[in-house]
Amino acid sequence: MKIMVINPNTTRSMTDAVVAAARTVARPDTEIVGGTPASGVPGVESHYEEVYGALGVIDQVRQGEDQGIDGYVVACFGDTGVPAARELANGPVVGMTEAALMTAALIAHRFTIVTLPRRTIAHSDRIVRDLGLGHRCTVRAVDVPVADVSHGSAHLAEIFAQQVHPDDEALILGCAGLTDLVGPLTERLGMPVIDGVTAAVPMVEGLIAQGLTSSRVNTWRHP
Amino acid sequence: MKIMVINPNTTRSMTDAVVAAARTVARPDTEIVGGTPASGVPGVESHYEEVYGALGVIDQVRQGEDQGIDGYVVACFGDTGVPAARELANGPVVGMTEAALMTAALIAHRFTIVTLPRRTIAHSDRIVRDLGLGHRCTVRAVDVPVADVSHGSAHLAEIFAQQVHPDDEALILGCAGLTDLVGPLTERLGMPVIDGVTAAVPMVEGLIAQGLTSSRVNTWRHP
Amino acid sequence: MKIMVINPNTTRSMTDAVVAAARTVARPDTEIVGGTPASGVPGVESHYEEVYGALGVIDQVRQGEDQGIDGYVVACFGDTGVPAARELANGPVVGMTEAALMTAALIAHRFTIVTLPRRTIAHSDRIVRDLGLGHRCTVRAVDVPVADVSHGSAHLAEIFAQQVHPDDEALILGCAGLTDLVGPLTERLGMPVIDGVTAAVPMVEGLIAQGLTSSRVNTWRHP
Amino acid sequence: MKIMVINPNTTRSMTDAVVAAARTVARPDTEIVGGTPASGVPGVESHYEEVYGALGVIDQVRQGEDQGIDGYVVACFGDTGVPAARELANGPVVGMTEAALMTAALIAHRFTIVTLPRRTIAHSDRIVRDLGLGHRCTVRAVDVPVADVSHGSAHLAEIFAQQVHPDDEALILGCAGLTDLVGPLTERLGMPVIDGVTAAVPMVEGLIAQGLTSSRVNTWRHP
Amino acid sequence: MKIMVINPNTTRSMTDAVVAAARTVARPDTEIVGGTPASGVPGVESHYEEVYGALGVIDQVRQGEDQGIDGYVVACFGDTGVPAARELANGPVVGMTEAALMTAALIAHRFTIVTLPRRTIAHSDRIVRDLGLGHRCTVRAVDVPVADVSHGSAHLAEIFAQQVHPDDEALILGCAGLTDLVGPLTERLGMPVIDGVTAAVPMVEGLIAQGLTSSRVNTWRHP
Amino acid sequence: MKIMVINPNTTRSMTDAVVAAARTVARPDTEIVGGTPASGVPGVESHYEEVYGALGVIDQVRQGEDQGIDGYVVACFGDTGVPAARELANGPVVGMTEAALMTAALIAHRFTIVTLPRRTIAHSDRIVRDLGLGHRCTVRAVDVPVADVSHGSAHLAEIFAQQVHPDDEALILGCAGLTDLVGPLTERLGMPVIDGVTAAVPMVEGLIAQGLTSSRVNTWRHP
Repeated sequence: MKIMVINPNTTRSMTDAVVAAARTVARPDTEIVGGTPASGVPGVESHYEEVYGALGVIDQVRQGEDQGIDGYVVACFGDTGVPAARELANGPVVGMTEAALMTAALIAHRFTIVTLPRRTIAHSDRIVRDLGLGHRCTVRAVDVPVADVSHGSAHLAEIFAQQVHPDDEALILGCAGLTDLVGPLTERLGMPVIDGVTAAVPMVEGLIAQGLTSSRVNTWRHP
Repeated sequence: MKIMVINPNTTRSMTDAVVAAARTVARPDTEIVGGTPASGVPGVESHYEEVYGALGVIDQVRQGEDQGIDGYVVACFGDTGVPAARELANGPVVGMTEAALMTAALIAHRFTIVTLPRRTIAHSDRIVRDLGLGHRCTVRAVDVPVADVSHGSAHLAEIFAQQVHPDDEALILGCAGLTDLVGPLTERLGMPVIDGVTAAVPMVEGLIAQGLTSSRVNTWRHP
Repeated sequence: MKIMVINPNTTRSMTDAVVAAARTVARPDTEIVGGTPASGVPGVESHYEEVYGALGVIDQVRQGEDQGIDGYVVACFGDTGVPAARELANGPVVGMTEAALMTAALIAHRFTIVTLPRRTIAHSDRIVRDLGLGHRCTVRAVDVPVADVSHGSAHLAEIFAQQVHPDDEALILGCAGLTDLVGPLTERLGMPVIDGVTAAVPMVEGLIAQGLTSSRVNTWRHP
Repeated sequence: MKIMVINPNTTRSMTDAVVAAARTVARPDTEIVGGTPASGVPGVESHYEEVYGALGVIDQVRQGEDQGIDGYVVACFGDTGVPAARELANGPVVGMTEAALMTAALIAHRFTIVTLPRRTIAHSDRIVRDLGLGHRCTVRAVDVPVADVSHGSAHLAEIFAQQVHPDDEALILGCAGLTDLVGPLTERLGMPVIDGVTAAVPMVEGLIAQGLTSSRVNTWRHP
Repeated sequence: MKIMVINPNTTRSMTDAVVAAARTVARPDTEIVGGTPASGVPGVESHYEEVYGALGVIDQVRQGEDQGIDGYVVACFGDTGVPAARELANGPVVGMTEAALMTAALIAHRFTIVTLPRRTIAHSDRIVRDLGLGHRCTVRAVDVPVADVSHGSAHLAEIFAQQVHPDDEALILGCAGLTDLVGPLTERLGMPVIDGVTAAVPMVEGLIAQGLTSSRVNTWRHP
Repeated sequence: MKIMVINPNTTRSMTDAVVAAARTVARPDTEIVGGTPASGVPGVESHYEEVYGALGVIDQVRQGEDQGIDGYVVACFGDTGVPAARELANGPVVGMTEAALMTAALIAHRFTIVTLPRRTIAHSDRIVRDLGLGHRCTVRAVDVPVADVSHGSAHLAEIFAQQVHPDDEALILGCAGLTDLVGPLTERLGMPVIDGVTAAVPMVEGLIAQGLTSSRVNTWRHP
């Protein structure tokens, strides 16, 4: 299979990071391809930036279709552009947020998203609500700008850990590019720590293996 | 990876069917093992039978732990015994119902479970509610006894198709052992038709690939 | 009327305690009978133990049907085995958790379950969710093993009281066998403190008085 | 115990009917007293009439407190005046709607309220929503004026029966004074048919037996 | 347009305050008329008082209809009497609580009602639930009697401000007659502070401008 | 006040229609300005087109800020681009869908959106869910392409009317540019028929009158 991991922003180091993360969990026979929009925004924190992020996703899916991509992972917390990508792509599309939430629901009764800037709580809330998981998932923020993690996030382990409550049974990292927090936080907290990109890769592989793709009946018909 | 697909009832032909279905989607390097309880009930339609089904699941997980199983799929619509299995198993456990629902949510906005006897609507409702998907998923029944599908279900394509409404974008087959309906119904309905066992296999593979298993913090600590 | 209070675990002192509690509220003409499974688990804290608890409930209902029992109370927080019991019993079956929640909803706008080990929060959440009371009920834990209350629970009054928030208007004791906490906590907190077993007895009496039992239409038909 | 069944409207024949219904299920040692407001409205179909109904409830509770009433049942579908009654009465207060819904939830997975005029659907919806039972309960109407049942409701059996769907497992009669439908409809439909007044009596008896009354912490403090 | 702002209690200074608040936002061509019931209760804190408040609303709407009022604002947090008023009035009726909640939802993702006595949390919860905004709105109390604000509320700015959490994006004042808190709290908190009366006036004006009034199909038909 | 009504698509006749509709309800002192993106898509039916619609909204808000616009109405069912617009605009922004839903909730207990192509049901569901109104609002489709209404919609009155159920108390037109259906359908159905653009204008006027705009605390801070 050939899977494209789309970074909706223009920061190539972020693409490299999510592609590397994706490869750690992909099937041996899966080829992981990274996608970075040629133009757009360097990061996605606001709803305004999400519109440009969605444009970047559309742009990458168009290129992916030309390259014979079998399925897509959208590597932006908030799943920016995922519905549009579903309409354009022939293969399935999985967002990192929905994948992280589903993964958490399979291994924990109650769990928490910890996102970076407080303004992005709404982006997480949107996907939690869309999936109906509000009775099991809380959303908190460490209130750090996304720019602070452009060269790694290991220095944030302490403030992430402080967000955990006694009722939390798993932690979802609320941003792409925090993969290097998974190891240290798992050890420190003694609970599963979930990165949405690594959660999404096997889900899209699984859809392809089942021969499934976005339903064309109503919502996600080709435009 | 070594994955056990547990049939909670004692009908070995059912085990064979779900194991065969699982193999169609498993990774090339995954070994699929079937599990059938030595004693219990021949099928699970009632809550009473679910208790014996759960015992069967426990029995199989115990054997699986001795055999070095890496992860489990529970092949009973209603996910009987899944919480207990999570506590016993070292590796992850995925129920076919939760897997089917998550898969549907990735490829369809609104979708429907069609289950067999009307009395099992409550079993589906339980998982739909547990995941919070009631705003996107409806549950209907064709009101056929499970025994009617012990030698295949292709003869039910017509009555399954009659349950579909114009707003449905994907169909979930509400019983294990209906895999042979996937092809005919997909073609007939022009929409994704989801079998929970094939949906669950890549999910448990994906958890293993990520090094994730049931959280031991509260709910699913070892007993 | 002849009502059986079923203790799903094998600890006979627990049965004695719940039978005694039941008698304090029963109608003068009600005979309360206790049931203890011959085999199973000494207590129910995990989902694994719940399966054996459910088996114990089934075993007791079978005996009860032979003895002409008119209705059943299941004395295990989490209502283990209640659905199966409904299918087997001719008379009505009431779980102590659902009864406690309904009772709380009749006398308080917002209320709280305080359960013992944190791992059992999920068992309470399940019934709260099944009844749809998540907007009025919170669930907390004192994180004490069930074994700590085998010889009475009066020593826990202080840590139970510490769980109460200013918005709580009633407290539900989240375990069978905490009846001796009702008096001291009621006095200390100045709010209703509810024991599920005493809540369930009049409910099952009331169903019998109305000539009502589990509907046989779909979900709880005899198996 | 001395329990007052309050009819919030001024139609004495309605009071007689609900008192008679209440007596069929009351404990042998319970005295059932009827209450009819001296002034007000002859029936409660609108929100406007509900205000006068609530006044009638207040009036009756005041008299009841003078007579040493131990607990109250409010016999109006929609539970008009129940919150105010809780604040005034020293003993517990149970509305017929909440009692009917809780009773249904104990004996059926999915159930339906059939109310009379379509305009009162909103009154039922209010209590369904307050209890959180919208995922299990639907509300329908036969669209008959309340006045049509002032001399009995047996002639409505047919149109009530037509409202029942295959997924319904119990039926709640959505108006006081329909007790004479319970028998014929139960036989005809083969499912439990619930009258809220007979459902409420054992619930208020049970609260009294447990020494419980409305919490005075916040919401229902004495005014 | 001629709009009546109804104070459901008998305290004329409260009427004056809400009328003055209403005038600050009304269209130049709108005439704002105040209504105070001749008899009733001096303030509405309990459900008992709400019944008399509702009577006061009915009384004022009757007078308003004689005066050719085009639309009504009910100035009592909890929207006491609004459903009855909708049935009586020919023009539209807007409650201050629903208006405040809708206004908050237009300018903030998550927001909070701060009410006065803790007992009135339930009144706010009722409207939050009726509108379905529980996933975005929390309700807290400063636990001050309504009487404390009869001569202004500016002295409460500090304790209101203390109720605000980092996730709150707007604050709703949970009582009529707190308009003088809007300015100081807005400045202090740096977030929108919403008074329900000023929120309701443009909504009722808007309904009138659109030629809309309460639907007469079912729920709010004239009684 | 100066309010811009933004048509997110490039069809100028649509802009003219919504501007005309807006003017029918605006305050006498309000200036209504129309906005049409210079480039983009001729209509918005898919999620893909929504991205370009959102770009168009951003473009128009930027121009509006230069022109001293006080507030914005986004005239696209689904409220495409509204969150981004809130971040960019200094004044308040109201979407036609949220405005229509709030308006319906003020005048009807249960109501229905009738949208055009079935694929746009998901766009309506998104806003219904965001506001939490799923318990009161249903969404249906007439399954007509948006292009069919580019020269008026009066010919659709019949098929819209056929979507109405006996429990519906108000109808929301699920597309911009259906204003000419309001009159005929209101008369035919005898219930309120709501156009989102005319619903939104007084709401944004009201926010301006109150001095309120999007909260800058978290979600809608300027990007």
